[in-house]
Amino acid sequence: MALIHGGDCEGYILETGKMPLDFSANCNPLGTPDGVVKAVCDSVKNASAYPDPLCRRLVKALSQSEGVSEKAILCGAGAADIIFRLAAALKPKKALVTAPTFAEYELALNTVDCETEHYFLKEENGFALSEDFTERITPKTDIVFVCNPNNPTGNTTERPVLETILERCSKTGTLLVLDECFNDFLDEPERYTLKDKIKENKNLIILKAFTKLYGMAGIRLGYCLCGDGELIEKMREAGQPWGVSSLAQEAGIAALSEKEYVVRTKALIKEERKRLKEALSELGAEVFGGEANYIFFKCKVYDLATKMRSEGVLIRDCSNYCGLEKGYFRVAVRTREENDRLLETLEKVIK
Amino acid sequence: MALIHGGDCEGYILETGKMPLDFSANCNPLGTPDGVVKAVCDSVKNASAYPDPLCRRLVKALSQSEGVSEKAILCGAGAADIIFRLAAALKPKKALVTAPTFAEYELALNTVDCETEHYFLKEENGFALSEDFTERITPKTDIVFVCNPNNPTGNTTERPVLETILERCSKTGTLLVLDECFNDFLDEPERYTLKDKIKENKNLIILKAFTKLYGMAGIRLGYCLCGDGELIEKMREAGQPWGVSSLAQEAGIAALSEKEYVVRTKALIKEERKRLKEALSELGAEVFGGEANYIFFKCKVYDLATKMRSEGVLIRDCSNYCGLEKGYFRVAVRTREENDRLLETLEKVIK
Repeated sequence: MALIHGGDCEGYILETGKMPLDFSANCNPLGTPDGVVKAVCDSVKNASAYPDPLCRRLVKALSQSEGVSEKAILCGAGAADIIFRLAAALKPKKALVTAPTFAEYELALNTVDCETEHYFLKEENGFALSEDFTERITPKTDIVFVCNPNNPTGNTTERPVLETILERCSKTGTLLVLDECFNDFLDEPERYTLKDKIKENKNLIILKAFTKLYGMAGIRLGYCLCGDGELIEKMREAGQPWGVSSLAQEAGIAALSEKEYVVRTKALIKEERKRLKEALSELGAEVFGGEANYIFFKCKVYDLATKMRSEGVLIRDCSNYCGLEKGYFRVAVRTREENDRLLETLEKVIK
Repeated sequence: MALIHGGDCEGYILETGKMPLDFSANCNPLGTPDGVVKAVCDSVKNASAYPDPLCRRLVKALSQSEGVSEKAILCGAGAADIIFRLAAALKPKKALVTAPTFAEYELALNTVDCETEHYFLKEENGFALSEDFTERITPKTDIVFVCNPNNPTGNTTERPVLETILERCSKTGTLLVLDECFNDFLDEPERYTLKDKIKENKNLIILKAFTKLYGMAGIRLGYCLCGDGELIEKMREAGQPWGVSSLAQEAGIAALSEKEYVVRTKALIKEERKRLKEALSELGAEVFGGEANYIFFKCKVYDLATKMRSEGVLIRDCSNYCGLEKGYFRVAVRTREENDRLLETLEKVIK
C-alpha cells in the first residue's frame, strides 16, 4: 500500500531512528488535552468490556454541544470511517467531487465502483469553489462532496454558494456531503457551517471530527450530522457494530469540556497562520487560501518536501492530489517555536 | 438499531443506574493486563499524531509471535472490522455459513448483497460440524465461514474435517474464512488451528482478535492471517487507512509480552469451565460443547435472560441466532467468585 497522506512519522522514525518535526498532517500543535489523556487512562482499566455500539453517552454530549437531535448523530472511528460507511450504505453510481480535495472521498467511492466526476478548482480563481459547480449537478448525480474549508487549499466557500448547491441537490435528488472537519479552525466558523440546515434538508450530511481540533488523530473519533434517520441507520449497519472504541467514546466526552483549550488553540492558530503566510510569501512562495490550520502554497523547488525531510521536517507534497501537479505543498500551522524551525529550514533549503 | 449481541452493560446502567455482572459477552475475566493499561496511558500523550496506517511495529511483533510473514498479516479495529473489510473487498455473490454462528459474517455479507446459504448444525449431533458440510460447497460458493471453536456453541471442529473443507474449497475456487478468535482459550489450541496452511493455500484466511484473550474488547484490535497478498491489499483499501488507533497498536504490542497473564487466564478458564458445566447440568440445563471461555446450554425457562437481568446478571439469550429458537443461552466463564454469583442467581431464578 502506498502511503498517500501526510503524517507518516513512523516511516521517518524507522528510516532514521529520529523523531521528525511533522508539518505534513494538520493536527493541533498543543497536543492532546490533559482532560482527554486522563479520560483515556481512566477508561482503559475497564477496556475488557465491549464499547457501547450506540455511543449513547457521547451522542448525548454531542447533541448538547452541537444543538442537534441525538437521532441525527452517528459516531465513527474518525471522519474517514464515516466516509467509507456512507459509500457502503448508499452505493452511489455517480459522484461529483472537487479537485484537489481530500482523497478519501474518491477512495471510498471506489470501493462501491462509483463513477467519480471531478470539478477542477482553478488556480486563477485561487482554487475557490464558484457557483458554476452547481451546473455540474444533474439528476444522475447521486452524491456530491464539498470540503469547507477545503483540504489541501484551506479555502472556504461562502454560505450563499453552499445554499445554492444544496438547493440544486434537493431538486436533483442528490446527497450533499459537507465536510466541516476543519470548520472549527476558522475565525468565524458559524459563517460557513450549514449545520442549521440538516433538519429541513434530509439530503444534507455534515462530517465532523475530533481528530484535528482536539489533537485526537491517534484515538480515532469523528461523527456526522444528518436529518435522514434511515440513512444514519444504514450507515450504522454498513460496518462493524463496535466501530468506536470505549477509549474514543470517553475521550470525546472529555474533549467537549475542553473550552479553554479550544480558545487557546484558535488564538494560536490565528496569530501563527498570519505570520507563516507572510513569511512564506517573503521566501518567494505563492500562498493560497489558508483560512484553517494549514497553509497551501506553490514553490519552484519541486523536490522541496524531499529536501525538507532530509533536514528532519516533514511537509506535505501535494503533487499526488488529483487536480494538482508538482510544486504544490501544504504545511500545518504549529507553535511559534516549531514554525520558526520550519521557516529556518525552508529558508536554508530554498536559498 | 437493535442490539443483537451480548455485552450491553451501558443499556443496563442507563436503565438501573447500577453495574451489571456481565456473563453475556465472552471477555477475559482477569480484565485488561497492567502492561496494556500502561502502554495505552503512555501512548495517549502522543495521540495528536495519526496512527501508522500500516501498523508496522505491531505487524512485526505479530509476525514473530505467530510465526507468519509480515506480508500475510492485516490488522483491523477488532476481527469484526476485518470481516466487513473482507466482504467489501471480495464482494462475494454466494456464501455458505453455519447456523448458529457469529452473526456478523452474514451482516457483513449483506452489505454487498451477497446471498447467504445456511448449513444448520444439528442439536442431535451436539451442534458439531460434520464432513457433509463439504458437499454444500460448490463452484458457485465464493466464500465459506467456519468459526472454530464455534460461537455460541463452543464446539471445535477437528483438523481432518477442516482439511477436507479446505481441499474442497481449493477445488471449487472458494475462500475459506476460519475464525479462530477463541482458539487461544482451548486446552490444545495447536490441535485446531490451520495457521500452518496459509502459506500453501491462498484461499484460506484466518481471523484472530486481541479482544477476548487480552481483555481488550473496548480497545478494538484484531487481525487476519492470509497468504494472498493481493487480497490483503484489497482489504486494506476497503476501509479507512487509519483503521487501527495508535492506542490499539501500542496495546497490541504490549499484550504480546503478557505471557504470564495468558497462562493464568487459561488455567482459570479450564478449571472454572469444568465447574460451571457440571453445576449447570445439576441445575437441569442441557450443556453442549463449551470448550472455550463460554458455555452454551438449553433451559426450559425461556425468559431466563430477562429474569437474570432483573437480578443484575446479564446472560446471552441465543434465540436471535439464525438456527436457534427460544430456550438456548450462553454464559461466559469468569472468576470463581463471579461464577458462584452466576450459579446462585441461576438457582434462585430456575427453582
